Amino acid sequence: MAGAAYRILAEQLATRGVDVAAVRAALNKQRIETPSWGYADSGTRFRVFRWPGAARTVREKLDDAAVVHRFTGITPSVAIHIPWDRPEDGDYAALRRYAKARGLTIGAVNPNVFQEEEYRLGSLGNPSRAVRAQALTHILACCDIMREVRSPALSLWFADGTNYAGQDDLRSRKRRMREGLQAVYCRLPAGSRMLVEYKFFEPSFYSTDIPDWGTAYALCLALGPRAHVLVDLGHHAPGTNIEQIVAFLLDEGRLGGFHLNNRKYADDDLMAGSVNPFELFLIYHELVAAGAAARHVAYMIDQSHNIEGKIAPMILSVLNCQEAYAKALLVPRRKLAAAQADGDVLRAHALLADAFRTDVRPLLAQVREEMGVPADPLDAYLRSGHEKRLAAERSRGRK
Amino acid sequence: MAGAAYRILAEQLATRGVDVAAVRAALNKQRIETPSWGYADSGTRFRVFRWPGAARTVREKLDDAAVVHRFTGITPSVAIHIPWDRPEDGDYAALRRYAKARGLTIGAVNPNVFQEEEYRLGSLGNPSRAVRAQALTHILACCDIMREVRSPALSLWFADGTNYAGQDDLRSRKRRMREGLQAVYCRLPAGSRMLVEYKFFEPSFYSTDIPDWGTAYALCLALGPRAHVLVDLGHHAPGTNIEQIVAFLLDEGRLGGFHLNNRKYADDDLMAGSVNPFELFLIYHELVAAGAAARHVAYMIDQSHNIEGKIAPMILSVLNCQEAYAKALLVPRRKLAAAQADGDVLRAHALLADAFRTDVRPLLAQVREEMGVPADPLDAYLRSGHEKRLAAERSRGRK
Amino acid sequence: MAGAAYRILAEQLATRGVDVAAVRAALNKQRIETPSWGYADSGTRFRVFRWPGAARTVREKLDDAAVVHRFTGITPSVAIHIPWDRPEDGDYAALRRYAKARGLTIGAVNPNVFQEEEYRLGSLGNPSRAVRAQALTHILACCDIMREVRSPALSLWFADGTNYAGQDDLRSRKRRMREGLQAVYCRLPAGSRMLVEYKFFEPSFYSTDIPDWGTAYALCLALGPRAHVLVDLGHHAPGTNIEQIVAFLLDEGRLGGFHLNNRKYADDDLMAGSVNPFELFLIYHELVAAGAAARHVAYMIDQSHNIEGKIAPMILSVLNCQEAYAKALLVPRRKLAAAQADGDVLRAHALLADAFRTDVRPLLAQVREEMGVPADPLDAYLRSGHEKRLAAERSRGRK
Amino acid sequence: MAGAAYRILAEQLATRGVDVAAVRAALNKQRIETPSWGYADSGTRFRVFRWPGAARTVREKLDDAAVVHRFTGITPSVAIHIPWDRPEDGDYAALRRYAKARGLTIGAVNPNVFQEEEYRLGSLGNPSRAVRAQALTHILACCDIMREVRSPALSLWFADGTNYAGQDDLRSRKRRMREGLQAVYCRLPAGSRMLVEYKFFEPSFYSTDIPDWGTAYALCLALGPRAHVLVDLGHHAPGTNIEQIVAFLLDEGRLGGFHLNNRKYADDDLMAGSVNPFELFLIYHELVAAGAAARHVAYMIDQSHNIEGKIAPMILSVLNCQEAYAKALLVPRRKLAAAQADGDVLRAHALLADAFRTDVRPLLAQVREEMGVPADPLDAYLRSGHEKRLAAERSRGRK
Repeated sequence: MAGAAYRILAEQLATRGVDVAAVRAALNKQRIETPSWGYADSGTRFRVFRWPGAARTVREKLDDAAVVHRFTGITPSVAIHIPWDRPEDGDYAALRRYAKARGLTIGAVNPNVFQEEEYRLGSLGNPSRAVRAQALTHILACCDIMREVRSPALSLWFADGTNYAGQDDLRSRKRRMREGLQAVYCRLPAGSRMLVEYKFFEPSFYSTDIPDWGTAYALCLALGPRAHVLVDLGHHAPGTNIEQIVAFLLDEGRLGGFHLNNRKYADDDLMAGSVNPFELFLIYHELVAAGAAARHVAYMIDQSHNIEGKIAPMILSVLNCQEAYAKALLVPRRKLAAAQADGDVLRAHALLADAFRTDVRPLLAQVREEMGVPADPLDAYLRSGHEKRLAAERSRGRK
Repeated sequence: MAGAAYRILAEQLATRGVDVAAVRAALNKQRIETPSWGYADSGTRFRVFRWPGAARTVREKLDDAAVVHRFTGITPSVAIHIPWDRPEDGDYAALRRYAKARGLTIGAVNPNVFQEEEYRLGSLGNPSRAVRAQALTHILACCDIMREVRSPALSLWFADGTNYAGQDDLRSRKRRMREGLQAVYCRLPAGSRMLVEYKFFEPSFYSTDIPDWGTAYALCLALGPRAHVLVDLGHHAPGTNIEQIVAFLLDEGRLGGFHLNNRKYADDDLMAGSVNPFELFLIYHELVAAGAAARHVAYMIDQSHNIEGKIAPMILSVLNCQEAYAKALLVPRRKLAAAQADGDVLRAHALLADAFRTDVRPLLAQVREEMGVPADPLDAYLRSGHEKRLAAERSRGRK
Repeated sequence: MAGAAYRILAEQLATRGVDVAAVRAALNKQRIETPSWGYADSGTRFRVFRWPGAARTVREKLDDAAVVHRFTGITPSVAIHIPWDRPEDGDYAALRRYAKARGLTIGAVNPNVFQEEEYRLGSLGNPSRAVRAQALTHILACCDIMREVRSPALSLWFADGTNYAGQDDLRSRKRRMREGLQAVYCRLPAGSRMLVEYKFFEPSFYSTDIPDWGTAYALCLALGPRAHVLVDLGHHAPGTNIEQIVAFLLDEGRLGGFHLNNRKYADDDLMAGSVNPFELFLIYHELVAAGAAARHVAYMIDQSHNIEGKIAPMILSVLNCQEAYAKALLVPRRKLAAAQADGDVLRAHALLADAFRTDVRPLLAQVREEMGVPADPLDAYLRSGHEKRLAAERSRGRK
Repeated sequence: MAGAAYRILAEQLATRGVDVAAVRAALNKQRIETPSWGYADSGTRFRVFRWPGAARTVREKLDDAAVVHRFTGITPSVAIHIPWDRPEDGDYAALRRYAKARGLTIGAVNPNVFQEEEYRLGSLGNPSRAVRAQALTHILACCDIMREVRSPALSLWFADGTNYAGQDDLRSRKRRMREGLQAVYCRLPAGSRMLVEYKFFEPSFYSTDIPDWGTAYALCLALGPRAHVLVDLGHHAPGTNIEQIVAFLLDEGRLGGFHLNNRKYADDDLMAGSVNPFELFLIYHELVAAGAAARHVAYMIDQSHNIEGKIAPMILSVLNCQEAYAKALLVPRRKLAAAQADGDVLRAHALLADAFRTDVRPLLAQVREEMGVPADPLDAYLRSGHEKRLAAERSRGRK
């Protein structure tokens, strides 16, 4: 049945000049990393929301990530957060084997330098030399962990900044941050990359030490070729054209990867593609357009599932990214380039919008069949009863 | 010495046509309420910041509020938050007497209907009838508490809203909210008011049930004459002209009061006047211009002091509001009205800006001397050693 | 061929429980008004863009609107702007007949009270009584024109506001605006409505006299039952949840209509659905959900086509609205309500998003066939050669 | 009399540790450039506002700039816009002499590559090679003009961008812009600088080719050491921390200068310091803090005075910048650095805010007396009757 719908769509696409086999091949290679912290409880500053089946340990998080991979087929790696994901025995090699046994690898390692009392005024940007040293020590320890879990990337986000004008000297903070990052860069494991994330605001409310892609990019230039910018889709001022930032960084060879999510207001950390699916499509359009220049980009989900569950929304986010990518692969690039060269504004826009309009679900169902995963992974998961079983199991251990 | 500076300023002001005695009289009557929760630990969604001297009990919060009043002379009331401020023995009358013994009264009562597990999908707007009933019961209990503590106002803020398009029906939520508020309104203690707060977003990220002043105003119209809108300065979209909202509500007799704070981005809850002092001045300018129409407005601080201490920043916020009010009192209203009537844009703006330019510290020092409080309350507090004593005392009981 | 694709889609929809005949019937009744000014040259503050085939007279504008109606079948009325659309002979009845001969009616009448030198400081809100009277006279003249052209609605947008704090008294402006509108309301032709538009900012940059829906709504309450709020999709602060405003006004019986367009930043006046098609769908979702409560809503395009042509982008905007409406008609309302009642956040959102995902072009092709218009109106228009003919014809008369 | 007020203030400042003589010396050296276009009529996209005394020719603009300099003493140079300021006889050397005779020099030269019909889709970023060449030719001609008028800077702002997703290829536009700028850079007159301006949006509404400081900075790096970033205070997303951008660029040696103005919403082009004077102070605070690193920064007013006159508001903007600079000079930098090093958030902020609180008008009156200009330049100008004389003179020639 999926076959019939697929055949009709494939025919239509072929008529439009789409190389459907190439599209399927590209979709087969798509990979998205899920974050360990997306399986645990999360919240707002007003409260933490308890989800009955939320993961409580790093091994439960890996179990859940394996479920997402089993249903989607395209999420074989998991980002970890240190010290949240420190195994009780401290044995990271064992953790890696635990993941491997579930068909998973460990992805990016994310040092946490914002939760200790000492980081009240920042980590690498802190006015206190002692606190900066403490943060640096932790990040360097994460480099060691990278080796043990065979992680390809150190993913750095800093809560550093100030809440009040005058609280600290902005140039000094800039210099301290660069100095700290240089010390880290020198100790990066061979073959790995450093991803430098920026954020418009929060939890700092006057200035943020790395507030925009320009600052992150300038830092990467100062560090070296293995430092790349990480784009979190929720970390921009309202109205910012994110796909243009993506295009710029790709063209400069400095796009490290994404933290995928969506927002309407600030850093809302909602499911990817849930607020503005057209924007997600436009981002993938730039990635497809860049061709080989995008081959090292890391795609990582980063969300706070406060009220919608854990595993099911992670699946939906992954599917939304898959759909956005599939639609981007359908853009008739030659026709588009011709309309652009002609200055035919309306036709060029309409060509792009038409690709977005296409319902790619039959195509994705076909790709999933080839991968051996359900044609409709979300529906299959929701019907599987897994969510309830997990809730029953895991709520036993909780007050 | 303060006297000399004051005399020069008073002369200059008199020359400009200011009735300095009337200004002093007005400043003597200014009152600002401080919030119990501003003396306790607070944080962001990333972590709670621990302050060594933060209050741990409702009685400690009252003690701290009394300190702020002792140094500023204009903060004799304290807003409370239920259940956070529920006394251990449940004896609210005793709590009121405890406050009274420290020269304080209890101000607005703020029911908390967002921290229980049941409120995951809202309180009065929740799709579940049972949860709505639970929220209503709590708010009605707060009406009883109002009687015991002799509170003049029930201050209502709802975290209610949705995170995703489709999650709930927007019209149904609107109707449930109104229905719930009507039930509360009927039980409001005699002589008291209901303050209805709105918020642009957070902790809901797709829709908020009372997202703007228009919704709060429409609800108040539906409820009755004792329902008024509460304006939190941090609860607007970027760029919103808050002073115009203030002017509108004053003119309609529906401005209930303020939650005073400041922000650069979202609901940052920084010290009042710390980000944009000119805006705070413009708000006070509307209040002064409205004359008697503003006489029932409640001025309440509402801030999260994450990294700057507790009592000292509360004092600074109060001083910033006092300063803004003092400057607004200096506006030459007749000249201003004449320039406005002439359509003399530049002169009208310059007249207003000139009032803001004036350094009113000598005037405030004089007023404070009359009140028997330090001429520079912040400096006096910081030099008093109180902060250190508190930190020593209160950190003993903490891990 | 369109038939085959339609049959497959219709079957799928029927399986999902959609009453396809009802959907088609609804689509047959959809109507969208186009604006006369959308066919003429427009620009930014930096320059006016000249389009070779742009309409130069009101009759040419009507000719162009007739073309859009011929290709789409759902745009039989045209909004006019006075004095821009004043016929040379001043004969409005003749203008109406000219329209009628082209299958058109005249829709909303839009008085222009912002282009005369006198309106430097506003129209109905101006501090000068004489200027207010001049504005009022013009608007009342427009009421007379409404009778002659048989217009159902007076559509009021005011550029009124101030550029600087202190420039004018905000409460006085509020009162003058209400007073002026009351004078207009009394003279509204029998059977017609007054639509009151609001706008966040521009061309006033400190305050706008009707800055938000709350102000427009309060004015409508003060005026009477024939005054309704007009929602221009580009007139909100960034992040504003427009569909919630729509739901609120519908529930209160005060939604007058829309100015349809799209924006990424401010009041960009881009083609409807071109920036965020999901948002447009969510707005139509609220309209469909409201059922009969939405039956008097006026749908009017309001755009500035600076660089993309005139007739073709108007067609595309109409098609985008048609598509958004079609998708909204596919939402499985009973299932959605059940998921919402269960508090099943993920499923409720997914149900709504699935309707958006559907490619409704085969369904619309079928509806258009029934209407006797091209299955793909934009493509048909672009291939028709009409744009070139118009350019040739109309550029002759221009320098 | 000004002397008495000054002496008291000077004493107070000396007590606080301020080197008042050094402050006065710094203020004596402050220079701000005014723009020729600020003396002519301007408007919004809705209409151009006619001001009776607005300048009609480049020579009248220079006359008006000379008036501003006569009253303020710190605006001896004028930025020009080509072709707006092309002399009728094309003799730029004569124009320079005309300026010199009035005590003025010509400042930055601003090429206009957005008003010709050809620039519909951009200038250096246009998809058409011919249009790019046309734009380049004009800019290179401006380099020649720079030599004739002895201008120190080529100031480049591009309206280039797109209105719709898909309209053009974002990476191609980026590359074309860089290529064009490189061609310009090679032809920059000896000893001059290129200033590269960025803008968040408008008149392009989907993407802007140089949308943020990061893009401008990256371009400058690619161009060479004489290319610097120009910061227009109105060209940022809401909430952007501009002073941090200033600090960053200063520290990298890439801050070229400012376009001074103010805004509440978008690029409102209001008088500098009229919306948020604290922000202007914070920007000057960074400039003072940077010391010698800021010595080549160009300070240029860039405003649209739509309704408030021309010369008077220009004077007010200059005075607001002077005041902001004076306050920044009063910041107790050693104490501030100590509080920052101690992590004393509250005290550090309060120290900075206290400098802003100071009424520096007596200090400025003293400085102005030394310069031989009126103690209150705005008041003096308004009383001079110049505005009326100009209106009478210049309105004669107008319809």
